[in-house]
Amino acid sequence: MKKLETVQLDHGSGGLASQELIKDIFLSHLDNPVLAALEDSAVLETDRGRLAFSTDSYVVDPLFFPGGDIGLLAVHGTINDLAMRGARPFCLSLGMILEEGCPMEVLRLIVDSIRKASCESGVPVVTGDTKVVPKGKGDKVFINTSGIGFVDKGVDISASMARVGDVILLSGSMGDHGITILTQRAGISMQGKLRSDTMALHNLVQKIIGLKSGAVHTLRDPTRGGVATSLNEIAEAAGVAIEIDEAEIPVHKEVDAACEILGMDPLYLANEGKCLALVQAEYAREILQAMRSLPEGAEAAIIGRVTDGPAGRVVLKTIAGGSRIVSSLTGEPLPRIC
Amino acid sequence: MKKLETVQLDHGSGGLASQELIKDIFLSHLDNPVLAALEDSAVLETDRGRLAFSTDSYVVDPLFFPGGDIGLLAVHGTINDLAMRGARPFCLSLGMILEEGCPMEVLRLIVDSIRKASCESGVPVVTGDTKVVPKGKGDKVFINTSGIGFVDKGVDISASMARVGDVILLSGSMGDHGITILTQRAGISMQGKLRSDTMALHNLVQKIIGLKSGAVHTLRDPTRGGVATSLNEIAEAAGVAIEIDEAEIPVHKEVDAACEILGMDPLYLANEGKCLALVQAEYAREILQAMRSLPEGAEAAIIGRVTDGPAGRVVLKTIAGGSRIVSSLTGEPLPRIC
Repeated sequence: MKKLETVQLDHGSGGLASQELIKDIFLSHLDNPVLAALEDSAVLETDRGRLAFSTDSYVVDPLFFPGGDIGLLAVHGTINDLAMRGARPFCLSLGMILEEGCPMEVLRLIVDSIRKASCESGVPVVTGDTKVVPKGKGDKVFINTSGIGFVDKGVDISASMARVGDVILLSGSMGDHGITILTQRAGISMQGKLRSDTMALHNLVQKIIGLKSGAVHTLRDPTRGGVATSLNEIAEAAGVAIEIDEAEIPVHKEVDAACEILGMDPLYLANEGKCLALVQAEYAREILQAMRSLPEGAEAAIIGRVTDGPAGRVVLKTIAGGSRIVSSLTGEPLPRIC
Repeated sequence: MKKLETVQLDHGSGGLASQELIKDIFLSHLDNPVLAALEDSAVLETDRGRLAFSTDSYVVDPLFFPGGDIGLLAVHGTINDLAMRGARPFCLSLGMILEEGCPMEVLRLIVDSIRKASCESGVPVVTGDTKVVPKGKGDKVFINTSGIGFVDKGVDISASMARVGDVILLSGSMGDHGITILTQRAGISMQGKLRSDTMALHNLVQKIIGLKSGAVHTLRDPTRGGVATSLNEIAEAAGVAIEIDEAEIPVHKEVDAACEILGMDPLYLANEGKCLALVQAEYAREILQAMRSLPEGAEAAIIGRVTDGPAGRVVLKTIAGGSRIVSSLTGEPLPRIC
């Protein structure tokens, strides 16, 4: 297959095209075992214990949307990437690329959101940088946050740790963020309360990994590419198969309705305040209860299990009683969702 | 004075307007002592020793220029920000914001430069993220790198540590990077060899801080805003005055010539492979020799001293025998220099 000669929107969608870009361009040049693991954050052995390190750029359009804005996303997203390795987030950096002519009030509102999210989650912004590009060479505000976390002894959480027999939990309903952005962009106003789920998950994670040492094998926040893509990545990394039950996956009815209108599948929509947890079966109920005891996990559910089917295969058992293969996001570009 | 209502190019120049933006918008919201110190990187006390953390976005235009490209800058710049606190750089993150339609070959060349710079400096890229924005909403490639370093016991280097009597060294010639970018943009071709000085300085820093514990008080790499702005920042942070000797400041003759043509003052031009070191006077000669023993410090010079004049004042003793106040960069926007 001839390689595409230019960067396409699809390369940023978080699906298959993103994975190909990463493998072709980044891993082929920058290969090292930590980077190659393609986890939500790097975990680094140092002579001072284990550090988690993560980075994410935020280019969401529109900047403000029901339930949040780019500032909240930038704080929550990087905290969550650290949390998905079981790390206790310690601090954040903040890099802003501003477009000339961006209203100062827009910037002020965003930085105020960053302040709120940082205070509420207890993770301070300790270093920053601001660049300005001429009008037409950016789009108001792009943000990068990077974060450092500490990984306690005995915590070893990664996609490759998933094991046959593990139970799969989702910490809440699916698709809220993605569909909120898409309806905003399409100019569709839905009755009811479509709103982004942007939220920090580090407290939920600390709670569930503290229940029973080693019981949580894998955590991932299904952002770009959605639950479907995250599960495919996990199945591939661990060399296992995954089965999920459509009837068990929580989806708000407003999200379902908007998906119908826009022809979207919530399995592929971005979430910004949810995590998948693959856990030892005997502790699954207890972990579910722990999630549900917190506001951020109130709608948590057991949605499936890891099976010994073909490595990398993800199967959805439909409400109708059938089953179908669920692949990674492909084809449809959903640009600037986060 | 009425505040400007929108972001201006000048807000990204690294001079006074940048400082005002940082104080007005960022510090007023995100205030904490580590961020407020406005150092090149944050140094964080943790139960696992001291960590340095830094972030920088790179939006240089053009992407490729004599002596380097945006990829080299992105690696060297963040390594240098860590080194300026005396930290040993440990690892980097890499966040890319790509514009739809960016030629894949451009991306490949840049990532290859990142690989080279990372290998040569021994600081690996361990985590990354890629976003794509639609054509016209970015400009081919923007890069953020963040970095973690370790600060050894006994190392305490910051702008506020500068003391009256300290000797000021510059690790090499001034203005090479800034004037290279400006002549490229102006389409001016100079005879001789104008080229960016982009270079990692962490080995030079480790060498000079290892000579005599506590002898190096302050380090800063004079990037945006140049030597003039960095010295003003130091003088203000430490509450001291600074005097520099025009005759002693190394400037390549090609840089001088290009500055004449473009009406620029090399004191305000960005450097990407130089550092200012403010050191205890009795060790200044030894530190100068140590710098000169390395290729990256071959042209190092003693350029001035810290005096007990009015806090925050920087004075240039001119070659003609006069003296003039040197203020921070102001007015003239030099966008996208790094």
